[in-house]
Amino acid sequence: MQQKKIQIGLFGFGSVGRGLYDVLEAVESRDITIRRICVRDKSKDRGVEADFTDSADELFADPEVNMIVELIDDAEAAYHIVRRALEARLPVVSGNKRMLAYHLPELIELGRQTATPFLYDASACGSIPVIRNLEEYYDNDLLVSVKGILNGSSNFVLSKIFNENMSYDAALRLAQELGFAESDPSLDFDGWDSLFKLVILTIHAFGIYVAPERIFRYGISTMNDADIRFAAEKQRRIKLVGHVEKLDNGGVYLWVVPQLISRNKYIYSVEDEFNGVVIKGRYYYKQFMFGRGAGGHPTGAAVLSDITACRYDYRYEYKRMNSSTPIHHTDDVVHRIYYRYRTEEDATLIHFTKVRERYSSHEWNYIVGDVNLRDLVSIQEKLSGKEVFLAAYPWD
Amino acid sequence: MQQKKIQIGLFGFGSVGRGLYDVLEAVESRDITIRRICVRDKSKDRGVEADFTDSADELFADPEVNMIVELIDDAEAAYHIVRRALEARLPVVSGNKRMLAYHLPELIELGRQTATPFLYDASACGSIPVIRNLEEYYDNDLLVSVKGILNGSSNFVLSKIFNENMSYDAALRLAQELGFAESDPSLDFDGWDSLFKLVILTIHAFGIYVAPERIFRYGISTMNDADIRFAAEKQRRIKLVGHVEKLDNGGVYLWVVPQLISRNKYIYSVEDEFNGVVIKGRYYYKQFMFGRGAGGHPTGAAVLSDITACRYDYRYEYKRMNSSTPIHHTDDVVHRIYYRYRTEEDATLIHFTKVRERYSSHEWNYIVGDVNLRDLVSIQEKLSGKEVFLAAYPWD
Repeated sequence: MQQKKIQIGLFGFGSVGRGLYDVLEAVESRDITIRRICVRDKSKDRGVEADFTDSADELFADPEVNMIVELIDDAEAAYHIVRRALEARLPVVSGNKRMLAYHLPELIELGRQTATPFLYDASACGSIPVIRNLEEYYDNDLLVSVKGILNGSSNFVLSKIFNENMSYDAALRLAQELGFAESDPSLDFDGWDSLFKLVILTIHAFGIYVAPERIFRYGISTMNDADIRFAAEKQRRIKLVGHVEKLDNGGVYLWVVPQLISRNKYIYSVEDEFNGVVIKGRYYYKQFMFGRGAGGHPTGAAVLSDITACRYDYRYEYKRMNSSTPIHHTDDVVHRIYYRYRTEEDATLIHFTKVRERYSSHEWNYIVGDVNLRDLVSIQEKLSGKEVFLAAYPWD
Repeated sequence: MQQKKIQIGLFGFGSVGRGLYDVLEAVESRDITIRRICVRDKSKDRGVEADFTDSADELFADPEVNMIVELIDDAEAAYHIVRRALEARLPVVSGNKRMLAYHLPELIELGRQTATPFLYDASACGSIPVIRNLEEYYDNDLLVSVKGILNGSSNFVLSKIFNENMSYDAALRLAQELGFAESDPSLDFDGWDSLFKLVILTIHAFGIYVAPERIFRYGISTMNDADIRFAAEKQRRIKLVGHVEKLDNGGVYLWVVPQLISRNKYIYSVEDEFNGVVIKGRYYYKQFMFGRGAGGHPTGAAVLSDITACRYDYRYEYKRMNSSTPIHHTDDVVHRIYYRYRTEEDATLIHFTKVRERYSSHEWNYIVGDVNLRDLVSIQEKLSGKEVFLAAYPWD
């Protein structure tokens, strides 16, 4: 059991970086301190006593720094920081889900080659230790699916709409005022943020990496009153869900999609900016983890958990990546969906293998029917910008 | 990363032992097999093909056995099996919460001395990985409390009463028919089972061991219609809760007690035989984990997680036991409680520092007021067998 003193070289002092700073102040740790903070503008007054620099070189050159914590927004810069840390054999903690979703395989390999700890639990679902749980607890081929509300901002907006009859726009404004929404709303509302997290979780859940661009992703930005009414009639709520599941044939499919969730489901009750993840396994049945998925302090505390784990030389083992059971990515799975559209041209956009309900009026039309995920992937780009909305409509 | 082949010497083939057997069959693991099973009566036909023995010596003498899994009911025998395994430097997985609650400090020390892995995640909350989470994720002095429904059988009965207006007796009979209740109902309904689990969780949450007999424990077996009516009037539900919390002064108190839970609390919605645990930390806020707490298959799957972890040489680190922050057990904390009684003699049993409500009728009386937990501990024995009922009545 190693108990080295940790001197952190921190990149970024936004909401999470500041959160980490506050948490460290609160625990009064003598064993973990922030040695130096690299920010873009070091002249800015941040109201804290710390050693700021704007030079990454200076931070990496500091011989006292023995761990790198990367909490910046810029994915490209984050990638270079993590690479550089691993090459210098400095343990590194990252919170950048976009960067991880694109570069994980390479960085995992680099971490292996350099035998350097590299942790990022805080990147997916903030304070809920999902990655750690998948790594440590569900590593025995029994796992069937991971399904969850992975993005707090979009869930906040959906909660306000479904519980308080707020309009989409008013809810979005409120989320932005409260600081829940990213400055680029597309990240939250078009499902990008959920997608990045899902890619990360899938590596730990099933041992396979699927690049973001290969995954069907649909968000809630085109959702309108008709869709809300449809959901209410069916006594369901619309939730933006990241979902990965293993089929009996060993294929694993994943998608990010609004889902019409019925009342008896755990994630039905995940409200506001919270995240909730349901892990399903053969014999385990279902487990549900719930907590704050975002925010400076909860995420800062999660980063501290990663730092502490690094301090004890904890590593992800990626056991599923070495599993003897053959697992492959597939899109060949049929789901029932709800599809709302306006023009006949848009109606033909989606190839339904079976139409189950069809509704038309002067204002809007919808089809409920079965679609192969493969076909959705192939029209993903065409769907974008159209005055349509689709949501999974599970059987349960 | 070690990947030894595991050959298990299994003690016990009851519900969980059988569950483990089924789960191992299902995953078709070639790396983990049950080498031999020690049972009391080896002549009994169990309908499985396995090598049964009734001799612990024979099992321990088998040179092929390289891990011991202990899933028997008898706490005393379980203790000797675990000791013997550790002394023989055989990694050991145990599911016996009663045994652990009484012997953990000694066994932890023995595990250290012999450098032998010793895991027991399945002992507390079955398939919910609470211990592993406390160990790995909340190890940084930010943890404030762990509070949960730790016993599925009593929760099943309470659910039937509060949701389906079933009588206590009918609900208990149903639980027994469905196989949820232990053969000795006192374990479930007088809070013993919850207490044992709470003792185990407290070691991992706060690094201190408190012997079961020092902890206030009260169950639901004397609950009656008056109490159910009181709860309903206050729009609350009665739940049997295990609760450990750190006070600002560094004192940690713990108790197992029925609690009047209001609707906005996570554990309000934990129904039937499920378990649910709320982990609260400074900066983390709250997290909620939920799943099947009992049953052969979920618990068998949890035991398999422990076995896999053992295979990878995972150990609990008990970091909190070595924490520099001084933590001590205390009972000096005031709670509001509801106390229902019949006779004036029983009324004086409890020393209220403040009476807030008082109700009397020909049939029953109650007091709502503030009580120091220390005083409850001192009258614990006197409460037993009395025609009274008490429940915590939190402020929230």
